[in-house]
Amino acid sequence: MIVVMQAGAEEALIDAVLERLEEHSLRGHLVRGEERTVIGVVGAAIPPTLKEELAHFGGVQETLRITQPYKLVSRELRAEDTVVDVRGVKVGAGSCVVIAGPCSVESEEQIMTTARAVREAGATMLRGGAFKPRSSPYTFRGMGEAGLKLLAQAREETGLSIVTEVMTPNDVDLVARYADVLQIGARNMQNYQLLEEVGRTGMPVLLKRGLSATIEEWLLSAEYVAAQGNPNVILCERGIRTFETATRNTLDLNAVALAKRRTHLPVLVDPSHGTGKWYLVPNMALAGIAAGADGVIIEVHPDPDRARSDGAQSLSCENFAALMPKIAAVAAAVGRQM
Amino acid sequence: MIVVMQAGAEEALIDAVLERLEEHSLRGHLVRGEERTVIGVVGAAIPPTLKEELAHFGGVQETLRITQPYKLVSRELRAEDTVVDVRGVKVGAGSCVVIAGPCSVESEEQIMTTARAVREAGATMLRGGAFKPRSSPYTFRGMGEAGLKLLAQAREETGLSIVTEVMTPNDVDLVARYADVLQIGARNMQNYQLLEEVGRTGMPVLLKRGLSATIEEWLLSAEYVAAQGNPNVILCERGIRTFETATRNTLDLNAVALAKRRTHLPVLVDPSHGTGKWYLVPNMALAGIAAGADGVIIEVHPDPDRARSDGAQSLSCENFAALMPKIAAVAAAVGRQM
Amino acid sequence: MIVVMQAGAEEALIDAVLERLEEHSLRGHLVRGEERTVIGVVGAAIPPTLKEELAHFGGVQETLRITQPYKLVSRELRAEDTVVDVRGVKVGAGSCVVIAGPCSVESEEQIMTTARAVREAGATMLRGGAFKPRSSPYTFRGMGEAGLKLLAQAREETGLSIVTEVMTPNDVDLVARYADVLQIGARNMQNYQLLEEVGRTGMPVLLKRGLSATIEEWLLSAEYVAAQGNPNVILCERGIRTFETATRNTLDLNAVALAKRRTHLPVLVDPSHGTGKWYLVPNMALAGIAAGADGVIIEVHPDPDRARSDGAQSLSCENFAALMPKIAAVAAAVGRQM
Amino acid sequence: MIVVMQAGAEEALIDAVLERLEEHSLRGHLVRGEERTVIGVVGAAIPPTLKEELAHFGGVQETLRITQPYKLVSRELRAEDTVVDVRGVKVGAGSCVVIAGPCSVESEEQIMTTARAVREAGATMLRGGAFKPRSSPYTFRGMGEAGLKLLAQAREETGLSIVTEVMTPNDVDLVARYADVLQIGARNMQNYQLLEEVGRTGMPVLLKRGLSATIEEWLLSAEYVAAQGNPNVILCERGIRTFETATRNTLDLNAVALAKRRTHLPVLVDPSHGTGKWYLVPNMALAGIAAGADGVIIEVHPDPDRARSDGAQSLSCENFAALMPKIAAVAAAVGRQM
Repeated sequence: MIVVMQAGAEEALIDAVLERLEEHSLRGHLVRGEERTVIGVVGAAIPPTLKEELAHFGGVQETLRITQPYKLVSRELRAEDTVVDVRGVKVGAGSCVVIAGPCSVESEEQIMTTARAVREAGATMLRGGAFKPRSSPYTFRGMGEAGLKLLAQAREETGLSIVTEVMTPNDVDLVARYADVLQIGARNMQNYQLLEEVGRTGMPVLLKRGLSATIEEWLLSAEYVAAQGNPNVILCERGIRTFETATRNTLDLNAVALAKRRTHLPVLVDPSHGTGKWYLVPNMALAGIAAGADGVIIEVHPDPDRARSDGAQSLSCENFAALMPKIAAVAAAVGRQM
Repeated sequence: MIVVMQAGAEEALIDAVLERLEEHSLRGHLVRGEERTVIGVVGAAIPPTLKEELAHFGGVQETLRITQPYKLVSRELRAEDTVVDVRGVKVGAGSCVVIAGPCSVESEEQIMTTARAVREAGATMLRGGAFKPRSSPYTFRGMGEAGLKLLAQAREETGLSIVTEVMTPNDVDLVARYADVLQIGARNMQNYQLLEEVGRTGMPVLLKRGLSATIEEWLLSAEYVAAQGNPNVILCERGIRTFETATRNTLDLNAVALAKRRTHLPVLVDPSHGTGKWYLVPNMALAGIAAGADGVIIEVHPDPDRARSDGAQSLSCENFAALMPKIAAVAAAVGRQM
Repeated sequence: MIVVMQAGAEEALIDAVLERLEEHSLRGHLVRGEERTVIGVVGAAIPPTLKEELAHFGGVQETLRITQPYKLVSRELRAEDTVVDVRGVKVGAGSCVVIAGPCSVESEEQIMTTARAVREAGATMLRGGAFKPRSSPYTFRGMGEAGLKLLAQAREETGLSIVTEVMTPNDVDLVARYADVLQIGARNMQNYQLLEEVGRTGMPVLLKRGLSATIEEWLLSAEYVAAQGNPNVILCERGIRTFETATRNTLDLNAVALAKRRTHLPVLVDPSHGTGKWYLVPNMALAGIAAGADGVIIEVHPDPDRARSDGAQSLSCENFAALMPKIAAVAAAVGRQM
Repeated sequence: MIVVMQAGAEEALIDAVLERLEEHSLRGHLVRGEERTVIGVVGAAIPPTLKEELAHFGGVQETLRITQPYKLVSRELRAEDTVVDVRGVKVGAGSCVVIAGPCSVESEEQIMTTARAVREAGATMLRGGAFKPRSSPYTFRGMGEAGLKLLAQAREETGLSIVTEVMTPNDVDLVARYADVLQIGARNMQNYQLLEEVGRTGMPVLLKRGLSATIEEWLLSAEYVAAQGNPNVILCERGIRTFETATRNTLDLNAVALAKRRTHLPVLVDPSHGTGKWYLVPNMALAGIAAGADGVIIEVHPDPDRARSDGAQSLSCENFAALMPKIAAVAAAVGRQM
């Protein structure tokens, strides 16, 4: 950490900083410039709160952190890629994973039809929500356990692993009984009790980036899961909120490329939420893979016009099937297999 | 709702929209322009999902909502201001409420010193966190129930009502035993199970706006609480996330002025989180009141340099005491009493 | 256009709107719902200002536009792709164009070395700034005409066409004497006199998207050029400003995919400015092409460590050469040629 | 400046940085921590480009600037407030300046009526646009010189000084012949030739903050004017672009409070553009003054319903007259005079 003193800060103020560092068993290394003095902080263990603690000391202009606040998920700690094994499907092992399915489970017919179609087209896992976070209390919020049972039934028949969202700590046990991957939605990226609860299960966790979360905050949320002894975290970029309203969100593929450098965890892309428009999904799925993602998660519905949620961003089964060979072609072009 | 057809959309596509409307017992009213046809949707109860349902019908260019999706909290439903009564303190009744206290409860001495000081200076309630959401799993996360007990002790001595955060549904009962106002933090603004759980208590709820929540989403979250039969919601603007990094957040006072028009609920301002810098807090507290807020919530710490969290944005007791007469002056200038 | 009246708006207020429409030779078509009345505006020519004009009429809740405000650049006007011919290089004709070169022209040796290297690697045009917009008045602002002469010399030797920025109307004639494509930088996207001036030249114009410009505003700026009778506009997405600071900007590839639907103009991607980090440039160049761009513009410098500007986001000549086959592979995968 | 080396960076890489510093006649001061080495850069004149130059040296993790890049406009250079004298009206001298008038000059009757009304109500200057930047090429773009003549006529009769926008360097002479204050609009905040041209006039300049400009960039643009020997810069916050669409822009009053600390220049607030809604203007004007602004600039039109631009955010003359006593009351409450 670096403490930058104000121009002309008195010695007594510098000493006060040095004393506080000593209280923490740290040393301050002075760099005296023409205008101002800078203090480099040296020591074994810098407390995470020290930066803000010193920021408003008398005579301090600002404090700058020079290491990243996450550890377990950092590439500095572990250089090789983490591979998350989902019942035999390896996520992060160089191949391109395709998770597909409806936003919400709506009926047996709907989920079974979709599962068969995406299986047929080559998808490697099935997504579908039984518990849905919705901005309004008056909209459809999912089928609950009945939806989970239908997902399990779809797995039984198709062999596809199940990715489904859990919204609150109390539901983790229930959802974990049916799911293969526990999804944490964007709104819950900083629901820390929930992160710890899914961390304790040891199961694969798909962690979506929050709507306005920085990449650093996203990795810190992954750190919450990992700190419970669960290394099986799959990150998922799903679009951030910006000033642009022509698309539902702004899919941030920079974040994919950067996250792959900063962390050893696998990273997926969700072009359905990332764009909000079904007709942009194919191009952005391809772009995500070209940007370095380990796969994509795509909303597919047998009849998007009648979907109870997210119809506008869902591909029909036909459009999904048409996209799959293109995904394979781009994946091959960047050295990935399906 | 309005359905805008694409230029030159065929009659069959228009008919398909009309048929779907009939399935929902709605009527479509055609407006045929030079270039395109627009369909006005008329009927008693437009389903909340209809907008997205029709958005990707063949030939549809876009769908536009023309009513607001919240009901109970809307000024259209109830024109007069809601007044939330917190053990005799009326929030929203034209006076200017001042809630003050530390970010976190850290010790008996710290909270008692602060409580006495802010009481002395004229604050009407005490804030303090016992459960703290933190981006990193490695930072101080609050004293838990021991902190709640200290808050209750401070109320006992000073008579100040207690505002404290609850982070997860399972903690609502516990926190409700000690608190007078249940605070929902910005990260939890869309934690719907939590909103419903605090809704069921019937207690006053302080609902902070999420970091990237629109005003509409904020009011929808208030609607979640109100829909449980709890009208005692106090909104709190605490800064949004923008591109500007010179301040921690961007305090959005437009949102205060606009929310006061759209809803009958009281609205407070949190200039501490809204700026992240203690030296900006006084000016922005005054600005918040001038913008029309029903009060302010301010972080105060007896020794900000040693605060375990948010020291950089906390006023010392002396600075808080110096601010209070200025608040009174601006409040008086805009016709509010302390 | 749609005029939405407030719930319970009186007939006199509705009549006032209708009268104003008549003043503009328009008709209002009433749609009376349960709660409120909506007026569909019908007529040959709706004035562009009518939306804001009516927005604050008594009893009006809001006004909604249902057509796009740009005409000449719209796909509705012209379905087939515009191809911009730059001395024989066809931009927008299905191939993948690669423009490469340094941020600034710094010396004869620097630009000639770069030009030869990128030509060798397969680039189709040379970029380089002679006039540089810089946030600070104290930084290097380009070589001016001397830089333009060096660019012309590089064209002479390598045959590469020249893309270079013009910053102010008075310089258009000068820059046009040397350049093949006039670049409008992000800061000048809404410098309307400049847009009209480059419009009048009839030359190819590379129009970068502004840092916080919506896609609609970007297309409207293209419309300014086109309205001068110059259809040769090449759009360029170069990253928008968001809350994320880990990358210099957020490259918005959604915008590429969407712009390709809304306009017939070619669209390029600038991953150098879009990320600000050279090590993210290759992945994001590939992602841009997969998203549907007609090509990329990449900063290349023979010695990025000593670049006078943008070194951190420039590829070395070696890294650029290594990227080119990957671009070719992804381009082929999405059906484009180099 | 601080250079942070990567964990475990080899000595040769550190030496390379030190050598480059020597080339610039600077010294590097090593701070060796447990994990990594940090280099404090010491010397008389650090080149502005050094930060980005070193950022991508081998072994360098990042470079951090510790001083602000603007000089002339900084409070560090000059502690006392700059007072800009506009024909006897002192801006920045502790009083509260009120500039009022229409968005555009539309006719003699319109501007004279407005000028008399705002003069009567107590405004200290008249605003009005003769050259208007508009997103669309098809909307009203101002009366040009005829508008300037009407403004001069209004000054003649009312004695009010004139604030009007200049959009392009070539128009500076013309506009300067009529105006008392040259306004630089938000879209032109980084039009550097224009900034320098108005700098050379020596006249008072009203510099609006760009839609997505950081506070630092805003002050750097002021530095461009000041660097031409013109200290008469008045800053104006007018709302930034964020994700929120319920208001036209997000008026950033944090920026006002912070700018007043960082610079000695006066700062105004424009609640008309800052909100886009006339009914929010009064509250936000008051909030701006409470936040510490030296005054406000407000759009007023005798018949907002028929304004050719910005009607939705213009106050009627009556509403403006009603606001003035409230402004006086809040100004008095924060120790300012009218």
